[in-house]
Formats: sequence, C-alpha cells, structure tokens
Amino acid sequence: MTLSNATFKQNPHSLLVVPGPIEVSDAVLLSNASASVSHVSPDFVQIFKKTLSMILEVLYAPQTAQPFVIAGSGTLGWDLTAANLIEQGELALVLNNGYFGDSFQDCLETYGATVEKVQAQLGHTVTPDQLATHLEKAKSEKKSYKLITITHCDTSTGVLADAKALAEVIQKHSPQSLIILDAVCSVASEEIRFEKWGLDMVLTASQKGLGCPPGLCICVASERAIKVFEERKSRPGSYYASWKKWLPVMKAYQSGSAAYFATPPTNLITALLTSLDSILKSSPSLEERFELHKKSSDRIKKAVDGLGLKQVPVNPGSSAHGMTAVYLPDGITPAEVVGKMSAKGLVIAGGLHKDVKDRYIRIGHMGITAVDKERGDVDRIVQSLNESFKDLGFQAS
Amino acid sequence: MTLSNATFKQNPHSLLVVPGPIEVSDAVLLSNASASVSHVSPDFVQIFKKTLSMILEVLYAPQTAQPFVIAGSGTLGWDLTAANLIEQGELALVLNNGYFGDSFQDCLETYGATVEKVQAQLGHTVTPDQLATHLEKAKSEKKSYKLITITHCDTSTGVLADAKALAEVIQKHSPQSLIILDAVCSVASEEIRFEKWGLDMVLTASQKGLGCPPGLCICVASERAIKVFEERKSRPGSYYASWKKWLPVMKAYQSGSAAYFATPPTNLITALLTSLDSILKSSPSLEERFELHKKSSDRIKKAVDGLGLKQVPVNPGSSAHGMTAVYLPDGITPAEVVGKMSAKGLVIAGGLHKDVKDRYIRIGHMGITAVDKERGDVDRIVQSLNESFKDLGFQAS
Repeated sequence: MTLSNATFKQNPHSLLVVPGPIEVSDAVLLSNASASVSHVSPDFVQIFKKTLSMILEVLYAPQTAQPFVIAGSGTLGWDLTAANLIEQGELALVLNNGYFGDSFQDCLETYGATVEKVQAQLGHTVTPDQLATHLEKAKSEKKSYKLITITHCDTSTGVLADAKALAEVIQKHSPQSLIILDAVCSVASEEIRFEKWGLDMVLTASQKGLGCPPGLCICVASERAIKVFEERKSRPGSYYASWKKWLPVMKAYQSGSAAYFATPPTNLITALLTSLDSILKSSPSLEERFELHKKSSDRIKKAVDGLGLKQVPVNPGSSAHGMTAVYLPDGITPAEVVGKMSAKGLVIAGGLHKDVKDRYIRIGHMGITAVDKERGDVDRIVQSLNESFKDLGFQAS
Repeated sequence: MTLSNATFKQNPHSLLVVPGPIEVSDAVLLSNASASVSHVSPDFVQIFKKTLSMILEVLYAPQTAQPFVIAGSGTLGWDLTAANLIEQGELALVLNNGYFGDSFQDCLETYGATVEKVQAQLGHTVTPDQLATHLEKAKSEKKSYKLITITHCDTSTGVLADAKALAEVIQKHSPQSLIILDAVCSVASEEIRFEKWGLDMVLTASQKGLGCPPGLCICVASERAIKVFEERKSRPGSYYASWKKWLPVMKAYQSGSAAYFATPPTNLITALLTSLDSILKSSPSLEERFELHKKSSDRIKKAVDGLGLKQVPVNPGSSAHGMTAVYLPDGITPAEVVGKMSAKGLVIAGGLHKDVKDRYIRIGHMGITAVDKERGDVDRIVQSLNESFKDLGFQAS
C-alpha cells in the first residue's frame, strides 16, 4: 500500500504544547517519511530550491537576501552569526531578555567578540528607549558595534521584544551595526518584516512556528551581511558553520543545480517544504496566520488571568503570541501542574530561566495548534489548565 | 487509521544506490514520521538513552567510551574532533586517501592545528609501512602529533584503509597521539573494533551504513580523548561543536534524565533507534552483516571485472565493501552511465575526486541493499550495469 496524505495518520499521542517542538501535521510527517533520494538528484534540487525561496517569503525578505538551511539545531544559528560576522576583538552588543541572550553572548565570545549587553530585568524586554540611551552613550565614547543582537521571543520567559522599534533605533543611532534577530521562537508565529525593518540576519529552527520536526537550522542574511562577511580579513572561526563553505552550496541549489559540502538532511527539508507550502499557499494567509496566533494566545492568557495567575512577562504588550509563561501560586510546583496536565493528555513545560526555574510553567501554542481551530487544541489547553488547578485545590482569588 | 510497521509502505521510487544516502527500511521511515514528542519527556529520554548505548555496541566500544549524537551532517564530526582535541599550533597528522582527507585537514587548520599529511596516491591508501616510516622520521625530528586521522573509506574513490594495522603502527611509534577514525562511510558496513584497535574517536553520520535519513552526526570518543579534552587550556574553538556543552547533555540522557543545550532532532533519533534495533537485535548478527556486505560487494565487483572495467581502488584488498568506484571506458561519460541506470530505475553517482571526476562512477551498496537479499537490490545493480554498458555499445574486451 502506498500512502497519500489522505490515508496517513500519525500515532495517537499526548498533545505536545511546549514552546517547541510543536505538533506537526500528518502531511509534514508523511514527507519526513519519504523514500530516500540522492541529495544531488533533480527532484531534490527542486525541493531544496523551493524551500530556500519560501523561507524568504515567510520573512518578507527580498530575493537578494541569502537563505541558509543546514542540518543542525537552532543553536547553530548563533555560530553562523558569530563565526562569519565577527572577527577577533570586534565589539558586539547583546540585548539580553533572558536565557537565550546569555547563550548568544557565550557563542559570540567563543568566536572572539568583545560583548557588551543591555540587560532587561526578568519579565521585561530591552525597550527602544533603553537602547537609544545606551547607543548614544556608546557613540559619545566612540564605541562602534559590529553587530547588535535581539532575542525576539525569549523562550525562557515568553517575553517578546519590539523588534521593529529596536531595529529603528539601531538604524538611527548605530547605522553601521548589523541587526541580528534571534527568531527561533517567532518565525511563522510572529510578524517579521525582514526588508521593511532593515534586518541583517534572522535565525530560526524547524521545530517551532515552521511546524516541522527538529533538526534544521534556518537563517537569512541580508546583502549587507554577506558583504561584511566577504570583506572579513580572517577566515571564519568555524568549519561547519562557515559561509565560505555554505554560500556556494546554497547558491547552487537556489539556481537549480547541486553542490556539495555536507549531505543535506533530505527528509527534513522535504518536510519543511510541505510545511512552508501549507503556511504560504493555503488559507489562512500569512497575515491571518499571525492574527490567529494572537487570538489563540489571547484566549490562553485570558484563562490564566481568570485563574488569577500572573504571567512572567510583566507588560502584556511585550508578551509572545506563540507561548505563555505563568507563575504558579505558592505551594504548587511546576512538576505538579505538568503532572496534572499530563494525566489529561497534554505535555507542557516547566521553567527554564535560572532565577525562577521552579516557580513557573510554559505552554506553547504555535503552528497548527494555534491556527487550525478544528483540532480544538486551544480549547483543550484552556479546559485542562482550569481543571488541573482545580485538581490541585487552587481557587482563583 | 493508525499505522503500524506492517501497513506502512514508502512511496515507489528509483532504487538509491549512491554511497549515501542509502535505501531506508519502511520501519525506519515510519519512526521518522512519529508524532512530536518533547525532547525532555520520559519516553524520548529512554529512546535517546538506548540509542547512545547501541551506538557503542555497533562499534564494539566499551561503556566507558562517550557517544555523541547531534543534529548535523557527518561533516560536523570533523569540527567535533578539531574544536575539542586541538589547541592553537598543535601538530596533527592526516593520512590522506582522497577528497575527505583534504577536507579534514582544512577543518583541523580552521581550529588552529598545524597539519602534516601522509599522502596516498589516487586509488591507494596510506599503508602501515608508509606510516611507520613517517612516524620514525617524525620521532627523530622530535615531532609529536596530538592526533592522527585515518579516513576509513574515502567515499570519493572507494578505497578502504587498513584501520586496524594503522592503529597498531600509531600505538607502536606514536603512542601519545589520539587515533581518529573518519568512518562516515564505514560504520555498520565494515568491521570497526573501537576498543580492540585502541581508537580514540570514531565519527560517522546517519545516512550510510546506519540506514537512516541524513541529519545526524554521530561520534564516539575514548576515555583518553575525553581526558585530553578536559585538560585543554583554551576554550573549545567552536560553540555548537563544543564538548563542554554536549558532555553534560549526553551524560544526562545516558543516565536516564534530560538536559538542554540544543533541541535534539527527536524524529531522526527515533528513526536511528529503529535502525540500530534492526542492526543489533535481529538476524543477521553484526558479524554476519559485515560478511553480507563483503558478499554483495564481491558480486558487484565481479560484475565490473566481467565487463573488463577497472576499479578506482588499485589493490583489491584496499577496496571498500559498501561501495564500488569504477573507471569508465574511453568515450563513455559518467552522465551517460548515470542516465542509462536512471532509465532502468537506479540512481548511482558520478565521480567526486578532483583529479578524475569525469572518468568514473560510484555505486553504493550498504545497509538493506547489501543485507536483505529478498529485496534483490544487488541483482538489479549487476543486471542494470551490464545492460547499461551494452546499451552504450560497450563490449567487454
């Protein structure tokens, strides 16, 4: 029996609503089970070519921007940034909203950057005003940042930075700096306007808003970023993450031929194309998709409010739409809530931020969970949350 | 409908007989289409734990050796070696049998190694005698190599190095050097005795003898290698490939708990476990598996001989058992043979080694193609080769 999308159904399982990996459609999983193809075959070249082009579309990036799709996790995106765009001793500025800002700094330092940071307090994001003040001071001290990193949604706390406004501030006060957006937990669940916002690098992974299994690192670099790379004096600090190796490969596949540096993960790329097809070519539109993420998010956050619980993001306007992080009432542990939810067939996540790790839970609602109402995932999340807290003897005050 | 292994059949496709990716079983593909799981869920922890343990078994490595399974291609294995085991200016020796030796050298140099090489001529491998001579000379010059790399099967030419004998020579003449085996195109298709041969690092990928889709970099390091890493003075040269990051993660999953550095590729790891299960727990045994690869290889090489064609490996004893590289008669191009084979439903590969790229073809016969006689893959390869050359008007002389 050969399977079509119509007949394949994934195995029954608990509903996965952590902030990635996320629920994946049957069609995407079936693509991930495609029979082996040669990575240089005409069929796969077309699959990869389309995938690279559609990644640009999801980000509203111009066709002059350079996409990279590489076997690796989202973490590899930091190496792709740092190993190619920083040379020994150059200055980088990290807008640090949490766990992932710390890690990006660590990665930049590995490749020789001197890193400064603007630190947001727990539950906050760095604001455009804070950044403007910092950059004005830096200018007066004759400091110049080679690049500035923004964590869009910090998955550790669910805060969402105002990437558009931050990018504007950078363009005004530090136009020479490359603008790097860590969008692992926001691509395809939050609006990102690569060209309009003047971004130079967006990095993400396959297992969040893009609705695929994990295993792909996905980046888009601006023409300006590629030029900065091409003019670097030293060799890139990494071998596997070197654009010197990857640029000819990506350009070949983009132009409809094959080139080799490392065997591309053919099945995952085929799965990604299926997901991109559904994101870009079917209803809802990309704009509607972002709206549906907001609506689903609002429903879950309203339920949290209804329970009288506090969210980790302090300002509702700086809260991600693909996940919700919630402080627990005194006397209730993350393990207890995770356990109750699990008994109801839902998998949620505990805390990650070191300062409050044992005091909050995280719920993911990206991709089909947020967009496909017929699945009823958001209903299940809301209902199970209410029941779980009731089971734990907690009453909204 | 929920699918079991018994009902899932992959899509009809041309038989993929390049030297990786290879044909993958329905059971492995079905695992690759598993519903999403959290990377920290108890179920996935058990899957990853078993996978890491079974990787050691395939290599006859002791439980004290350290396995790594990381999202990436086989190429990343070079970074894992060079970024963790080499410090600035240290000396490495590359036993260069072809394309992949050149690349390993490039990677080692990226991370600061000073690289020397012993170069085999095209179609040859570095012999134990050559290596002994080189190491004796090096000793007399008071040179000491931090590590020595062996490409087991160089996929560009199909030569197979005598890893066991080379390792013995290193232990005798340069016992302080770590022995690194690039086994991308040999793990699970050629015998590798990690412990008995005294290897310090074996690196491979998922899409060759291990019978999985591409996307996993798989390494095993000896206790000695880990100790060398732990005693290094400088930080590892890469972030994504840093053992400082990965060791706690791998150790956690090995001990039955989860830890986070980067989201593991859950589906691919589930698929790898299914393949390892079939390799280690069902008939044929691992030893028989290697024998079956030899038998399949012998049949294909005999057919090539019967056509009066010359193989790229000069010595039959230094020829891989998972692939065959064949020089073409004058007047016949790789594209023509690839095209004829393709018309018969078989995908083979052209040349890769820069010196003779347009003069030979490569055929892969690893995994289920070599082992599962009932598939009839080897019969199809032999028959289609004979017919293709006949179609091209070539008669055995």
